[in-house]
Amino acid sequence: MEQLIYLLPIAGVVALAYSFVTTGWIGKQDAGNSVMKTIADQISKGAMAFLSAEYKVLAGFVVVVAGLLVVMNTQVEGGSPLIGLAFVTGAAASAFAGYLGMKVATQANVRTAAAARKGLPPALTVAFRGGAVMGMSVVGLALLGLGLLFILFAGQLEVFNDAGGLNDQVGLVKTVNLLAGFSMGASSIALFARVGGGIYTKAADVGADLVGKVEAGIPEDHPLNPATIADNVGDNVGDVAGMGADLFESYVASIVGAMILGAVASNGSLEMVMLPVTIAAIGVIVSVVFTYFVRVKEGGNPQIALDGGSFGAAGIMLALSWFIIDYFVGAAAESGGLTLAGKTLETVDLFVPMAGGLAAGVAIGVVTGYYCSKNKPPVNSIVDQSMTGPATNIIAGISVGFRSTAIPVLIIAAAIFGANHFAGVYGVALAALGMLSTTGIQLAVDAYGPISDNAGGIAEMSGLPPEVRERTDNLDAVGNTTAAIGKGFAIGSAALASLSLFAAYKTMTRANMELTDPEVLIGLLLGAMLPFLFSAMAMQAVGDAAMDMITEVRRQFREIPSLRPALAKVKAAEDEDRALSDEEQAEIMEAAKDTQVERCVAISTQASIKRMVAPGLLALVAPVLIGFWSTAALGGLLAGTLVAGVMLAIFMSNAGGAWDNAKKQVEDQKRDYDASVNTGKGSDRHKASVIGDTVGDPFKDTAGPALNILIKVMTIVAVVIAPFLV
Amino acid sequence: MEQLIYLLPIAGVVALAYSFVTTGWIGKQDAGNSVMKTIADQISKGAMAFLSAEYKVLAGFVVVVAGLLVVMNTQVEGGSPLIGLAFVTGAAASAFAGYLGMKVATQANVRTAAAARKGLPPALTVAFRGGAVMGMSVVGLALLGLGLLFILFAGQLEVFNDAGGLNDQVGLVKTVNLLAGFSMGASSIALFARVGGGIYTKAADVGADLVGKVEAGIPEDHPLNPATIADNVGDNVGDVAGMGADLFESYVASIVGAMILGAVASNGSLEMVMLPVTIAAIGVIVSVVFTYFVRVKEGGNPQIALDGGSFGAAGIMLALSWFIIDYFVGAAAESGGLTLAGKTLETVDLFVPMAGGLAAGVAIGVVTGYYCSKNKPPVNSIVDQSMTGPATNIIAGISVGFRSTAIPVLIIAAAIFGANHFAGVYGVALAALGMLSTTGIQLAVDAYGPISDNAGGIAEMSGLPPEVRERTDNLDAVGNTTAAIGKGFAIGSAALASLSLFAAYKTMTRANMELTDPEVLIGLLLGAMLPFLFSAMAMQAVGDAAMDMITEVRRQFREIPSLRPALAKVKAAEDEDRALSDEEQAEIMEAAKDTQVERCVAISTQASIKRMVAPGLLALVAPVLIGFWSTAALGGLLAGTLVAGVMLAIFMSNAGGAWDNAKKQVEDQKRDYDASVNTGKGSDRHKASVIGDTVGDPFKDTAGPALNILIKVMTIVAVVIAPFLV
Repeated sequence: MEQLIYLLPIAGVVALAYSFVTTGWIGKQDAGNSVMKTIADQISKGAMAFLSAEYKVLAGFVVVVAGLLVVMNTQVEGGSPLIGLAFVTGAAASAFAGYLGMKVATQANVRTAAAARKGLPPALTVAFRGGAVMGMSVVGLALLGLGLLFILFAGQLEVFNDAGGLNDQVGLVKTVNLLAGFSMGASSIALFARVGGGIYTKAADVGADLVGKVEAGIPEDHPLNPATIADNVGDNVGDVAGMGADLFESYVASIVGAMILGAVASNGSLEMVMLPVTIAAIGVIVSVVFTYFVRVKEGGNPQIALDGGSFGAAGIMLALSWFIIDYFVGAAAESGGLTLAGKTLETVDLFVPMAGGLAAGVAIGVVTGYYCSKNKPPVNSIVDQSMTGPATNIIAGISVGFRSTAIPVLIIAAAIFGANHFAGVYGVALAALGMLSTTGIQLAVDAYGPISDNAGGIAEMSGLPPEVRERTDNLDAVGNTTAAIGKGFAIGSAALASLSLFAAYKTMTRANMELTDPEVLIGLLLGAMLPFLFSAMAMQAVGDAAMDMITEVRRQFREIPSLRPALAKVKAAEDEDRALSDEEQAEIMEAAKDTQVERCVAISTQASIKRMVAPGLLALVAPVLIGFWSTAALGGLLAGTLVAGVMLAIFMSNAGGAWDNAKKQVEDQKRDYDASVNTGKGSDRHKASVIGDTVGDPFKDTAGPALNILIKVMTIVAVVIAPFLV
Repeated sequence: MEQLIYLLPIAGVVALAYSFVTTGWIGKQDAGNSVMKTIADQISKGAMAFLSAEYKVLAGFVVVVAGLLVVMNTQVEGGSPLIGLAFVTGAAASAFAGYLGMKVATQANVRTAAAARKGLPPALTVAFRGGAVMGMSVVGLALLGLGLLFILFAGQLEVFNDAGGLNDQVGLVKTVNLLAGFSMGASSIALFARVGGGIYTKAADVGADLVGKVEAGIPEDHPLNPATIADNVGDNVGDVAGMGADLFESYVASIVGAMILGAVASNGSLEMVMLPVTIAAIGVIVSVVFTYFVRVKEGGNPQIALDGGSFGAAGIMLALSWFIIDYFVGAAAESGGLTLAGKTLETVDLFVPMAGGLAAGVAIGVVTGYYCSKNKPPVNSIVDQSMTGPATNIIAGISVGFRSTAIPVLIIAAAIFGANHFAGVYGVALAALGMLSTTGIQLAVDAYGPISDNAGGIAEMSGLPPEVRERTDNLDAVGNTTAAIGKGFAIGSAALASLSLFAAYKTMTRANMELTDPEVLIGLLLGAMLPFLFSAMAMQAVGDAAMDMITEVRRQFREIPSLRPALAKVKAAEDEDRALSDEEQAEIMEAAKDTQVERCVAISTQASIKRMVAPGLLALVAPVLIGFWSTAALGGLLAGTLVAGVMLAIFMSNAGGAWDNAKKQVEDQKRDYDASVNTGKGSDRHKASVIGDTVGDPFKDTAGPALNILIKVMTIVAVVIAPFLV
């Protein structure tokens, strides 16, 4: 049984090997003409500049927190300073995964654009493989890091004369608790990366649009707009690096949550700890294998290829899970069986929660899809209400978002009920793991979206023919099903993983958390407030950072002499709805060279890094402050943040998604309702729907996704500080 | 001690006598010219038509629920069918208070307009006395109903051979538990009244504005707009009747909560039950006395008069509370003292929670004022962000609303902590009562706002000179401090009163509500979701009902022949920014007679009544369904709704208030930022701020205030059904 510990680093190495090979393949693809290369180079440099600035700030933070962990753990009986090492490793692995993913994404975007000149299938392949590198780097580093630490800590047990090693309950609990440090490191970095990246991407986006499209009247992604590169950098740091760190964190939290709960909720059964580890390792192998199934022939349907890859992997993994569980239950039977809460568990008791978790994730994804898709009643209602202006558009979008919380919450409740019925809180942990066992390939599909999006931007900026942009837009549209389901997994697994960590906190502190205890109630109230305050800070940060960007772009338009005539020319052509001549186009590209792109990039970078600190620290400090006052209040705090955070996250993501597609739906239809009125692009209704979409941007891309991390980071902090609270 | 029971009906009769006399006085005031009388008559008839339609629907609901309560209580041991009587009485008293308040408000509005022709002070007096009738009707009926039931139930105890009567613990608990029925009746009516009235007022407002101001280009409140009367009716049914039912409910819930908790949390101490009763009774007398202090001389500052009245009453009441508490503590000392959780309470232990509650209410009000007031940083930020359009205005408003939850929640947490420290959950109940002991005069100040607002509408519609409108606008602006503090009390008392009822639920069911119990967590999740779903339903209802109204107004503009030329004339005058000649004005008033005002009123009435049912039933049915599944889950449900509901209520009220004042602030300033750009009325920034204000309307006037009731109605339902769950 102990030997299974080596599965983790092995699976991690397999995934990383895949990443390495695929990165090489992508590097060999055609990177397009010199304009494309220049643009891609600017984006790549901007993205790396952001990462390095961000990591510098975070490095200081990591050192301080690691120091505190070491000092505190040498003070408390049974504590081990090794948790500091785990924390640093988790943070470093998360950061490195973000770095690898973004590195390849900024290579893949321009190569996708280049491939799109030839057709859809080659472009899909490049974009998907770019995403796959991201996915496999994330799961590979997670398993490698976790595996090496696990082996190290297990080895230490014998050194420290913990004779029983992993087969001894005390030793096992001690070992897996140290791994919480790894998870905390990953979560902290993810929180800052999500918030910082989210601020960057939306500040650049809003800033570029408001000055470029609205004030100067030039098209989106236009080379004359100095904020365009920053906007594209933003897509990478927000959507690629941010999402990577996010999923790294989710993945680690669900594995570590299941391990800790396996150890503390049982009589220290090694089987219960090794089961989630094994499932994660096998899931990675399955993911890698299935990336090779994502192929499409000329004229084939790429949607089927992508969905086939990710659903196929999930299906196979579910089937394999039965046998894995059966093996562990069988092995455990020899030593008296897996007992939890007085009941001897059978294979079905562990399989159902996992399958239920997977089903719940898919169901939430389907519901998410329903609320956010074009031509479904919720989006239709927003489109209808846009007829009477932006105010009714906004009210309708908020209504849809609020309402969309209901069914996902019922699904989560059902998953908790079922999982708990079969295997107690350990079942809840397995349900979270069930959703995330094939994260590798899911993330590949998720990450290829922003790569395609970026490819489109590069095509636009480098003046490629419109059919290239059309192809990249098509790529972006494909795989939306998987992306929606990815969202469902993100929300569902956040709720379930933090619930299982919450149960671990309870077991570790033995806090009496009766709901009517005033301390618990105070914690609940404060906890429910935090997601609101956190979201407000994140949105405010976007607004402030966008203002910085707007001021800079306005300055350049005003002060750079060559820009004014070029801008006037583009605007005139836009107003007259005519294409520019080649000569004019060349003049404009010449003027575009004078834009001070790097200043916009620098402003976005500084603004977002400065403003990510406060909301990030809020999440990390709040549980510590409350915890040292009262363990019961900290329990309340976690529960309050969990429930309010889940609601706000669903609300903000879905309202944002629905507004986005309502705008697209308005753009799709040239005329309706009344044949004499144009209700499509350019109409008042379209303007109203654009406003809704803009409001939705920081909802769905900054605050919403960060809330999923907020929930978990607070719980993992509570677990890590638990030994000092009792 | 038992004799103090008679204080309640006596105080109730005093308040009602005040109402009766003042109503007579108002009736004798000048009701203006014939046009004004006609308009006032239309508003009054429309408002009464709504009430009677609403009460018809609610009567059916009340009969069904009362029947169920009677049947269920005859099935369970120790249950008494008298709870059905209590429920009906509570519902009837609430409905009657709404009726009385609205009757006098629709008389006072036109008389305020008439008085405003003479000057500000007489107008203030009429408007304030109108509000005072509302306030005293609410507290008078509450105490009379509660008092008579209490006497009746206490008398029944001896009939049923409960020999000890109120001095016996079992008898006391049984008696006060029956009073929960009264509170549930009041809460149910309040919920429907708030939701129905809130839908009505905003649907009419939005409908009238969109077709009148936006489409036809005629001013607000114009007589040619057939929806204008409905809009004014809406102010009465939403702001007056809705607010009255709301405060009736809050007031009753806090008194009954303290009584129940006094009985169940102690060893059945009669002193603890009679204390809140006595405080409420004395508070009413103090309120009545202080209404006579609200006087202003010509040239005096009405703000000082109003604030003096309500703060004076609160201050005196606080001082009196010390002596009242001291009396009860002294009386209890003879029979061994008031013991709670093993500690013998002294005067200070009960006084501090009450004073703390009052202080917390004021503090929340001050914070509310800060977030919603012109020229303070939050509203300034919205004004600034309006420069870049509606999208940034909306994002800024939502940020402000989210952020504004933080300090009030900290204050509520501090109040809970302090109250609990001194006197356990009974202290929490007293804290809620502390905020509401002078509800009578507070409501007087609150209710005079909509009366002044309506007076302004009547002045506009009946073509009175502009200075009359200015005076009524000034009236509306005065007393904002008190109104903000009223909001603070509403939110604070809702949280504290439902917490104390929650504690009563726990004691009654003896449910084990450990926070990590999956059933509790499922309850928490579902409970946190309900306020979101409820708000979505309420906002959606406003949108749908507004659409009905828009369709009808468009039809009238299209089909009534005389309206088209008149509308064209008004629009032309507006566009040219010139006043109409007397002749034109007369023509237009003639055409206005052809508008089918009553059809718009009927449409608003039907639409709002139809759409109030679903959200209302959601609140009432959810705790029953969950409760019969699991008492622990119901506990979680209540806690989840409480915390998420408090956040959403604060968010929606404050965002709405901040948007409203951001718009006003933009209108105040003709030019700023850049001398060459008009940034005031009519500018793009103004348009953006109007959109924010419109989004805020259903936030602050429909969903926000209803959430406060939602929280309490669910808790009181849980308390009432508690005996069947164990």
